[in-house]
Amino acid sequence: MSDRFADSFRDGAVPMELLRQRAHNLRWAEQAPGVIPLTAADPDFPAAPVIRDAIADYARSGVFSYGPAGGLASFRQAVAGYLRQRGASVPPEGVLAVNSAAAGLALVTRHWLSPGDEAIVWDPVDFLFAHTVRSAGGVPVLWRIDPEAPLDLAALEALVTSRTRVLCLCNPHNPLGRCFRRDELEALGRFCLERGLRVLSDEVWSDVVYPPATFTSWLALEPELAGLGAVVHGFSKSFGLAGLRVGYVAMADPEAAARLLADSELPSTVDGVATLSQVAATAAYSPDGLAWLEAFLRHLQARRDQAVTRLAAIPGLRVQPPRPPSCCSLACRRCRRASRNWWSGCGGSTGWRWCRGAPAGSAPGRRAICG
Amino acid sequence: MSDRFADSFRDGAVPMELLRQRAHNLRWAEQAPGVIPLTAADPDFPAAPVIRDAIADYARSGVFSYGPAGGLASFRQAVAGYLRQRGASVPPEGVLAVNSAAAGLALVTRHWLSPGDEAIVWDPVDFLFAHTVRSAGGVPVLWRIDPEAPLDLAALEALVTSRTRVLCLCNPHNPLGRCFRRDELEALGRFCLERGLRVLSDEVWSDVVYPPATFTSWLALEPELAGLGAVVHGFSKSFGLAGLRVGYVAMADPEAAARLLADSELPSTVDGVATLSQVAATAAYSPDGLAWLEAFLRHLQARRDQAVTRLAAIPGLRVQPPRPPSCCSLACRRCRRASRNWWSGCGGSTGWRWCRGAPAGSAPGRRAICG
Repeated sequence: MSDRFADSFRDGAVPMELLRQRAHNLRWAEQAPGVIPLTAADPDFPAAPVIRDAIADYARSGVFSYGPAGGLASFRQAVAGYLRQRGASVPPEGVLAVNSAAAGLALVTRHWLSPGDEAIVWDPVDFLFAHTVRSAGGVPVLWRIDPEAPLDLAALEALVTSRTRVLCLCNPHNPLGRCFRRDELEALGRFCLERGLRVLSDEVWSDVVYPPATFTSWLALEPELAGLGAVVHGFSKSFGLAGLRVGYVAMADPEAAARLLADSELPSTVDGVATLSQVAATAAYSPDGLAWLEAFLRHLQARRDQAVTRLAAIPGLRVQPPRPPSCCSLACRRCRRASRNWWSGCGGSTGWRWCRGAPAGSAPGRRAICG
Repeated sequence: MSDRFADSFRDGAVPMELLRQRAHNLRWAEQAPGVIPLTAADPDFPAAPVIRDAIADYARSGVFSYGPAGGLASFRQAVAGYLRQRGASVPPEGVLAVNSAAAGLALVTRHWLSPGDEAIVWDPVDFLFAHTVRSAGGVPVLWRIDPEAPLDLAALEALVTSRTRVLCLCNPHNPLGRCFRRDELEALGRFCLERGLRVLSDEVWSDVVYPPATFTSWLALEPELAGLGAVVHGFSKSFGLAGLRVGYVAMADPEAAARLLADSELPSTVDGVATLSQVAATAAYSPDGLAWLEAFLRHLQARRDQAVTRLAAIPGLRVQPPRPPSCCSLACRRCRRASRNWWSGCGGSTGWRWCRGAPAGSAPGRRAICG
C-alpha cells in the first residue's frame, strides 16, 4: 500500500476556512461557528490531486463547447472500466452522465413510471427514493427493512399490485449500512423477473465499504437479472465532488440506455452535465484517483473505529456495533424522545448538527442518523 | 477601446483540433471533415482568459462541496450587478443559478403552468419555448411574428383564453434578429398586466447586439411591468460556456424567486449547477470578462458584415439587409423548395450544416436560418 497520500488526510489538511465558504447543503458554510455538521455526506478533505490537475489541464485551453447528450466518451469509457473491475459487464454506451446521483434517480423513475404506477421503496431509506417516485407521478409503497434480519420476501409479495413497476434498492443501504449479499440480490432479482418488475439500484455508497464487508453491484449479477436493473452512482461521497454535479446511470443493455437518453431532457439541452465535471469524474476513476480513494478509505475506517470507541464512552448513548459500511448509528432510547424532536432539540446545545435519515412511515424515536 | 484582445479573435486562435474533439450538439465533433457547422450557437474561440484563470484558481484548492441551492452568493451578486448596468433593479436574491438558459425556461414554465394551461409562444421562435411549455403539461399557443411589422396585439388578444397564463418572449428574437423597442415591450406589459398574464423573457442573445440597435431588458421596464416577468439568460452564446451548463433566472421580486426556488428540484439536490461553472460565469461578468466580450462583439460584427457581402454575391441567394443582432437570414425563394427539404438536401453537397429554426406552424419554404 502506497504511502504517498499519507499527508492528504491529516487534520491539518482540512481547509476549514474554505469549507466555511464553500460547503453548503447544511454543512460548514451554513452552521454557526463551533457547530460540527454531521449532515450531508461530503468529505472535508480536498479532492484528489489528479482531479484538480485534470480540471486545470482541461480549462487551460478554454474550449467549453457543448458536450454530447449522453456524456463524454472518455467519461463513459472510464465508468465502464470501473464497473468492469466490480465484475459488471456494461459497455460505454450503457452509461449516461447525469447531473448527480439524485438526478439519476429522477431520470430513471420518470422513464419507468407512468402516473399512478407504484414503486417499492425501503423503509427507512434516503428520502430521495420516495421523493423522485412522487415527482414522476408514481406512488412509493414502503417495504420495511431491518438492519440485520433477512429480507422479508413474503411482506414484499404482499405489497405487489398490478400497478407495481419498480423495486428501488439502496446498496449499500443508507442509513442502515447494510451491504447486500449476492444471494440476497439474486433472490430479489428472481422475484422481480417473475413479476415483470424493474430494479433501480442506488449504489452511491458502494465505494465506502470496509473489509471484511464486500459489495456486489446489481450489474454484477447474472445477465438475466442484471438486465432488469439501472444502477445509479456518483462522485460526492467518495471523491468529494458534490458541488460539481456529476453522476451516472449504468445499464447492461446499451439499447435500454439509449431509450432512457431519448426519453430524457438531455438531447434537448434542457438537462446536461458540465463537461468539466465529467473530466473531473473521469480523473477520479483513473489509477491515481482510485489509489487516492483507497487511502481515503483507510483513513475513514480508522476514524470510524475511533468515533465508535469515543461515542460508546458517552453516558446515555449506546452505539450499534460497527457494521460496515456507512456511518455509525446511535440508539438513544433512554432519551424517550421522538427522533424528530431529539434531532431538532439537540443541535444547538450539543454543538453538533445531524440530519434525519428516517422517512415518513418509520417508527419514531428509534435512531438518529449521522448521514 | 483596448486592443489587448486583438490576438484572441484571429483565425489562428481557433483551436480546430480541440473543437473536433469537444464541440458537440451538431457542431465540429459531430460533422464529417470539411463540413462547416452553422448549427448550435457556440463560439469557436477559446473562452476569455479571466474565465480560464478563475476555474484554475478555484480548482487548485480542491474544495468542491455542495453549493447553495439557489446559486453561489458571488454568482448571484455578479448577475445582479450586470443587470444593474442594463438598467434593471434585481437584488442578488432575485437571481437563481440554473443548469442552462434552456433549463431556466423549463424551470419557469413548470412553476407557472398547471396541466392544460396555455402559454403564448411566438411563431417562429426557438423550439425550446413550445418544448418546455409542453414538458410542463401546458399548451403552446402560436402567435405569428413578422421580422419587421408592428406586433399584432389584436391577433394576440384573439389567442387569449381563460387558460392563458404566460406570454413567452424571445428578446432579441431568435431567429428573426429583432430587438424589441421599449415602447413595444411596454405595450406588451400593459396587455399582460390587464389580463393577469406573466411574462417569460428569454434574453439569451442580448449580449450579441450591434450598434445602432439597443437592447431593453424586460427587467428594465417600470416596476409594475418588470414585476410580471422572469428573465432567462446564459453564457453559451456570448462567452462560449455551453459545455459548463450554467445560466440564470432573474426576477425583480426576491420573494417570487424564493417561491420559484422552493418549487424546483434545486433544494432536493436532484437539480443543481456545478459550483465551478458558476465561478466561470462570475468571471465572465467581471470587468475583464466584459471587456473580452466587447472585443468579441467587434469581431462578430466585422465577420457578420463580411458574411453578408460574400453571401449576397452568390447567385440565387438574396440576403436580408443585416438587421442587428443575430445571424443573417437567407431568402432562397428561387429554390422553390420547402425549407425542410432545402435544409436536408443542401448539407452534404454544400459542405455546410444548418439547423432549422422554424417551428411547426410557420410557413414552409420561407427561409433557412443559420443559428
